[in-house]
Amino acid sequence: KQSEQMRKNGTRPNIIVMLMDDMGWGDLGVFGHPAKETPNLDKMASEGALMTDFYSGNPLCSPSRAAFLTGRLPIRNGFYSTNAHARNAYTPQKIVGGIPDSEILLPELLRKAGYKSKIIGKWHLGQQERYLPLNHGFDEFFGSTNCHFGPYNNKNTPNIPVFRNGEMIGRYYEEFEIHQKTGESNMTQLFIEEALKFIDEQHAAGNPFFLDWTPDATHTPLYASSGFLGNSQRGLYGDAVMELDSGVGRILEKLRDLKIDSNTFVFFMSDNGAATYAKEQGGSVGPFLCGKETTFEGGMREPSIAWWPGKIKPGIISRQLGSIMDLFTTAVELAGLSIPKDRIIDGSSLLPLLLNGEEDPNKAIFYYRGDEMMAVRQGLFKAHYWTWTNSYSEFKHGTNFCPGQNVTGVMTHDQTNHTDSPLLFNLGLDPGEKYPIKSSSAVYKEVMPSLEAVVKDHKNKLVAGEPQLNICDKAVENWAPPGCVKLNKCLPIPKSNPFNCTWVH
Amino acid sequence: KQSEQMRKNGTRPNIIVMLMDDMGWGDLGVFGHPAKETPNLDKMASEGALMTDFYSGNPLCSPSRAAFLTGRLPIRNGFYSTNAHARNAYTPQKIVGGIPDSEILLPELLRKAGYKSKIIGKWHLGQQERYLPLNHGFDEFFGSTNCHFGPYNNKNTPNIPVFRNGEMIGRYYEEFEIHQKTGESNMTQLFIEEALKFIDEQHAAGNPFFLDWTPDATHTPLYASSGFLGNSQRGLYGDAVMELDSGVGRILEKLRDLKIDSNTFVFFMSDNGAATYAKEQGGSVGPFLCGKETTFEGGMREPSIAWWPGKIKPGIISRQLGSIMDLFTTAVELAGLSIPKDRIIDGSSLLPLLLNGEEDPNKAIFYYRGDEMMAVRQGLFKAHYWTWTNSYSEFKHGTNFCPGQNVTGVMTHDQTNHTDSPLLFNLGLDPGEKYPIKSSSAVYKEVMPSLEAVVKDHKNKLVAGEPQLNICDKAVENWAPPGCVKLNKCLPIPKSNPFNCTWVH
Ligand SMILES: [Ca+2]
Ligand SMILES: [Ca+2]
Repeated sequence: KQSEQMRKNGTRPNIIVMLMDDMGWGDLGVFGHPAKETPNLDKMASEGALMTDFYSGNPLCSPSRAAFLTGRLPIRNGFYSTNAHARNAYTPQKIVGGIPDSEILLPELLRKAGYKSKIIGKWHLGQQERYLPLNHGFDEFFGSTNCHFGPYNNKNTPNIPVFRNGEMIGRYYEEFEIHQKTGESNMTQLFIEEALKFIDEQHAAGNPFFLDWTPDATHTPLYASSGFLGNSQRGLYGDAVMELDSGVGRILEKLRDLKIDSNTFVFFMSDNGAATYAKEQGGSVGPFLCGKETTFEGGMREPSIAWWPGKIKPGIISRQLGSIMDLFTTAVELAGLSIPKDRIIDGSSLLPLLLNGEEDPNKAIFYYRGDEMMAVRQGLFKAHYWTWTNSYSEFKHGTNFCPGQNVTGVMTHDQTNHTDSPLLFNLGLDPGEKYPIKSSSAVYKEVMPSLEAVVKDHKNKLVAGEPQLNICDKAVENWAPPGCVKLNKCLPIPKSNPFNCTWVH
Repeated sequence: KQSEQMRKNGTRPNIIVMLMDDMGWGDLGVFGHPAKETPNLDKMASEGALMTDFYSGNPLCSPSRAAFLTGRLPIRNGFYSTNAHARNAYTPQKIVGGIPDSEILLPELLRKAGYKSKIIGKWHLGQQERYLPLNHGFDEFFGSTNCHFGPYNNKNTPNIPVFRNGEMIGRYYEEFEIHQKTGESNMTQLFIEEALKFIDEQHAAGNPFFLDWTPDATHTPLYASSGFLGNSQRGLYGDAVMELDSGVGRILEKLRDLKIDSNTFVFFMSDNGAATYAKEQGGSVGPFLCGKETTFEGGMREPSIAWWPGKIKPGIISRQLGSIMDLFTTAVELAGLSIPKDRIIDGSSLLPLLLNGEEDPNKAIFYYRGDEMMAVRQGLFKAHYWTWTNSYSEFKHGTNFCPGQNVTGVMTHDQTNHTDSPLLFNLGLDPGEKYPIKSSSAVYKEVMPSLEAVVKDHKNKLVAGEPQLNICDKAVENWAPPGCVKLNKCLPIPKSNPFNCTWVH
């Protein structure tokens, strides 16, 4: 109905997705962080719809971003590994795989409706040339294929390139500095300026546009620019949050200045939960359990705000379940297009909710870790079929996904199979997943069968995609990315030697 | 300066303190609870000043309330026990002690400036006749001397009386029902109606007034009225929060209707942290450690909002440290009076902050448990001198003040003395008290000496009050409270047999 309406009136609003990196649910003022570092986001929430129960597509960067741009779970679009059961995988420099050509990315679709699309920040869907954003529907790209890890010595490992469109224009820690000791870097300012410029240009050209604004300052190694360093009360992480928040404010202000705010749908969220393993360098999971890499709430519930002045009523607080994949479907509908019919799209449109207040109580969230469906949520109930955080040996060596937390039998350090009697939680009563509902209880007996039916239906229809994250090879690292010749920055490429990537978490 | 100004212009604004019972920092929408049950409080915060770093006077009901009304730490006003080291004590029915006559309570002072004072809800400063509110400065009282525990059989233990002014008018579970199974009770509605009526009456009479509105629906056993039962997504606790929130809304609306909102200073907070031991029946500590009964942040940091339209600028978010005792001093100053000079008052006025934005970086918070100063905070740093949660035997038997949490060496189950090398935390970086700062670090060496100086000064000046909570006696229970004859509800009083109260936590 909504999409019909959209197709009829053909408004084709601009679409901006602000996708943060490792920012936690609990980092926003409006979600309770005591440091209250996000005045612009809090204001955005008060002017739009705050989504309290909105999820990433995965507890890790690459698969979550692939889920967004394809509208499909990573198990379908190939962003997982079969190298080891229930382990997360992503796209490091040495990954051979990437986003398959067979996947239809959001900007590819939007192009059909005349949209110009740009991604600013971290791509992370593969870094070999055939996987680059401009080969998958984006018109412009400013940012990097990978995380800003480093510095490297360009011998054992090349420094990560920063791209403009199809060519690299420098490398992190070389042309694009991130000061190792202080964390000072101008990157977020560059990402903000790029966004403002793109909006100006597309507005001037009269194009509807899609901006995937995905700065990564809250992913370790953290960074902030000189104007923000030391401004927060929680160190570099808070400084980065404040700088990103200011960027949100400046982008929304730009829309207002150009008087296109009522013609621009903006959605803010993060790609996965707070990196609790980074301790004081990571974000906040608020009242939730564990963080990034896990399928507990801290790993996948995201700070999420929808904003569209004049269309979305101000001050909505919605507990409707939703996921990053819904942004795909919502954007397609906003553009007046139809979603692909030849494949399962996991996202559903948010417009009935956001424009008409229509809720979908049957919406289910599937929590995957690598190749395994770990948990499912419908309504207030969440059932864990498999639990684990990280291995005991990793934990013993200091990697803790749940620092300060301990829920016995839930935060397991081995892969525990509960499929015969899933661990059930009422996330309304117990958002922190602290009090498993007894399997002998009336509630359990009433709720579990309907969840089981949801899972059964999901698994029956599931056709897993070809896993993209199994093979690694040092030869595919960023030794000589497109553009390196011009810059005289090509490095010698080692001999190809493919091997099975190993994933510990 | 502020108080001079107040004395000069003599505005004598009305004063309302809304003091919740066991509500947690994390229960308010504006402090991040995902259930977002507090639209009225969130609005109140947006219209006033939200205090992120505001503390109770103690992690337990009675001492915290005594701290509020005397402006003094419980160690000074006598609301502690010396029966056992570092154990919390309160005023159960059998307590012999109560608020000493030598203490000057806020309404006693306010009376000098012509204020009419009423307390609605839980008194908890002693339940023998000489301790009743009307004997300590209040003009009116509707509520109870004790918690609404019960039902009792009136043989081994009398049911708790509900008072109007100096006389009981019935008992909980008898005339004032709390349905044991459903939790249905009309008490919060009565407390709201009493508040509205008092405001109307005092306004009509032209009196400045002080209302101590302290409903106790969020203290177990939880209750809510039929209009709220089942309305929240987190059970009876959330229902109670929603009903209290609606009460806040109705009281503020009444002030607006009477056009006295700009002449009424309102402060909302809670008397101690969330009762985490009650599990799903308790509130939320948000991102903080442990809860009620403990001196970790979850035990004493409170959801706090100051509201005074036209005087306090809307939308202030203040990280200034403050405590419930500051409300005493603030109220005295608002009334144009001077604080007593013959004793130490721990509270300081909030008016320089709230009206002029003047912060006090030296303000210190002392975290006491019974007779022991457990911890101190100044700025972002908190040092624990003693740590414990509850005894291992209590813990083993299922009483857990920190469910789902585990910070080794911090949440100790015995009383651990760190006075030689206090456990130091940066609550800015680490609000959850998860990452103790190494005592060998430069930060520790820089910060600890100044905290030590604060503690030394505090201890040097400390004159402990006569402990009020040492002696118990079944004869002092509510067998035959004032008013019982009229109601024909006097019960036989057992023979006096005083004994040392025992406190396990
Ligand atoms: Ca990420
Ligand atoms: Ca209490």
